[in-house]
Amino acid sequence: MVSSSVQTEQRAELAAWARGLRRSAMQDMLAATLRPNILSFALGLPAVELFPTTAIAAATERVLSTNPLALQYHPPLKSLKQHVRELMKQRGVDCREEQIFLTAGAQQGMSLLAHLLLEPGRSVITEELIYPGFQQVLAPFQPRLLTVSTDAETGMDVDAVERYLRAGERPSFIYAITDGHNPLSVRLSPSKRARLVELAEQYRVPIIEDDAYGFLCYENPLPPLRALSEQWIFYVGSFSKILAPALRAGWLVVPEELILPLSVIKESSDIDAAPLSQHIVNAFLDTGQLPAQIDTLCTQYRLRRDVMLRVLAESFPADASWTKPDCGFFVWIELPQDVAVDEVFRSAIEDEHVAFIPGYAFSVNDKLPPSSGMRLNFSHPPAARIEEGIPRLARALKSLTG
Amino acid sequence: MVSSSVQTEQRAELAAWARGLRRSAMQDMLAATLRPNILSFALGLPAVELFPTTAIAAATERVLSTNPLALQYHPPLKSLKQHVRELMKQRGVDCREEQIFLTAGAQQGMSLLAHLLLEPGRSVITEELIYPGFQQVLAPFQPRLLTVSTDAETGMDVDAVERYLRAGERPSFIYAITDGHNPLSVRLSPSKRARLVELAEQYRVPIIEDDAYGFLCYENPLPPLRALSEQWIFYVGSFSKILAPALRAGWLVVPEELILPLSVIKESSDIDAAPLSQHIVNAFLDTGQLPAQIDTLCTQYRLRRDVMLRVLAESFPADASWTKPDCGFFVWIELPQDVAVDEVFRSAIEDEHVAFIPGYAFSVNDKLPPSSGMRLNFSHPPAARIEEGIPRLARALKSLTG
Repeated sequence: MVSSSVQTEQRAELAAWARGLRRSAMQDMLAATLRPNILSFALGLPAVELFPTTAIAAATERVLSTNPLALQYHPPLKSLKQHVRELMKQRGVDCREEQIFLTAGAQQGMSLLAHLLLEPGRSVITEELIYPGFQQVLAPFQPRLLTVSTDAETGMDVDAVERYLRAGERPSFIYAITDGHNPLSVRLSPSKRARLVELAEQYRVPIIEDDAYGFLCYENPLPPLRALSEQWIFYVGSFSKILAPALRAGWLVVPEELILPLSVIKESSDIDAAPLSQHIVNAFLDTGQLPAQIDTLCTQYRLRRDVMLRVLAESFPADASWTKPDCGFFVWIELPQDVAVDEVFRSAIEDEHVAFIPGYAFSVNDKLPPSSGMRLNFSHPPAARIEEGIPRLARALKSLTG
Repeated sequence: MVSSSVQTEQRAELAAWARGLRRSAMQDMLAATLRPNILSFALGLPAVELFPTTAIAAATERVLSTNPLALQYHPPLKSLKQHVRELMKQRGVDCREEQIFLTAGAQQGMSLLAHLLLEPGRSVITEELIYPGFQQVLAPFQPRLLTVSTDAETGMDVDAVERYLRAGERPSFIYAITDGHNPLSVRLSPSKRARLVELAEQYRVPIIEDDAYGFLCYENPLPPLRALSEQWIFYVGSFSKILAPALRAGWLVVPEELILPLSVIKESSDIDAAPLSQHIVNAFLDTGQLPAQIDTLCTQYRLRRDVMLRVLAESFPADASWTKPDCGFFVWIELPQDVAVDEVFRSAIEDEHVAFIPGYAFSVNDKLPPSSGMRLNFSHPPAARIEEGIPRLARALKSLTG
């Protein structure tokens, strides 16, 4: 007792919410995928061999040899905002430069919006299974989570959203992943998109639309929610998946009056100045190569998706089911309810040296029954590794289900 | 009334603390300094012509041609932590790799520490005039500010710190700028350093030590507080002033048990992965050129400081006084108490096209009497511009004091 009490006093006192912080599952996964013997379907990594590395190196050389101010404190680049405006047109969104806020990636965009909108004790509407990085954004604010389920064909249960609002709930925002849902790989149906935007406008509740994967659509692209409402959809975009994650570049499209408070919050967080990488992204976009790069990515990721779907059909048990993703990086697999996913995970890692992420890692609410799902990434491993790894994963599964 | 109420409802409701957010004085200044006709002594900008641009371009080329993973999500670079460890030895600090946390610059380091340590309603001990970026870090938490004054020769009033602690105050932390104080350009005396660290240990209150300018000392460098205590000093370092700001690279040195919660908080803020710029800084440090670069900067900035001090003595009125800075980027000028600094500021900008920052911009507490100080930067303008600008500033001052 004495030594433990002495030890406590010898350490600084942390904020209450921070005392329980644990290493995130994602951080463990990132470490595991770097082990050379693991074939990983775990993380949402883009394919390294598809990065336009030479063009990025050329863009950097051009920036550093022509613009000495690229290494100095510098306001966010207006020219990059113009590029983003053009890019948004490809998503069917017409926006103005004055509505664009440049970020260090989608994660920062969501974090800034949460700081702008959330106060401790308020509520948020979210699906039951979502991107864990957004759960980390919410953690310090400890909002009440009003959860809705997700239909495997049509996405978020918008009727359940309406029931909350009609019952008088006034959440600070609704979180939506319209295309390339992470982890469920579903997309919101056109009629639900229209209805969800109607609800946001009617009840005056903003929607944070996480579109990190929206440019990577393999069939029939649909415009995001932001195409339907300028005032109530706060759109989160990213260059991480369409260019390269280590550039740490993304953007928000928000009502113009939010740009100023966002810039003050970003200034407090990491100084709202253009990093070198913003100049590099801008110089790459100047070359006009991004649309062709996105085409290449869509072609290659579509191929990998098709290989994964084929090998799953060949090797997985008949009582498992999975999505056929139109967009994004993931296949979501539902196992029979009596299979313990963490057992499958352990056997996959230890016996078969294959990694995936168990569905429960995405649950916003520990009180929900553990999901029987598995999230598999198909963008990072080349086709041959997918052909090799899925049967190994099937073997780990069969070793447990007999 | 009706139209105003309609307008309110048409906008999303912001968090209470965010509703009052205004454009910061620093953002206005950054915009003003980019106007071509303004000779600016305002911001804490390093000199563009002293950036090792060619070496940074070569380092980038090396990284991108040899390491395809430099564009991918990647854990923070251990090799860069080793470089930081060596660098800290130059400051007289012996630390371990396990105590080093890599950040996107000093501002992010301070923001992460505040999120880790602060809860709404707690208190913080700070000097009355400090770096405004740190005030922005504190803003969302709205802590009680326990202020102490700063002696122009010996720095922070450590006796006043002791009085707070002895009276039972238990602040979440003490904020200290030991060397190259921003804005006051004083350094904490050796005896006050020892006493402040004793107080931190005795009362178990951590100190956030902002050492953004600590490597740029022009006479008689002193070890920072972190050299005196491993457990209670949370050290904030930055490559912005010794390499280049747009690389957005910095570090913390903290007790090892804080690395994990910091990484979870950073993950939520912008994903705790190594950006390309971390690889670039690492590759530049691999060449061993940083010590020579720091020597060059110290030589050149010392020259500029000396020019500014000489021209001030030649042109400023006898009843003004100023610091002779040993470290950092600034000269702090105290005007006679009856001079309205904002009048001087207006006249300097409008009549003489010279910019500085009025002292009140650094005040943590609006209830304090407005400071009669002016902060002048000497690192950014070349010597000839300093020779030209200081007499213009003196003219603006004399036009008001008759």
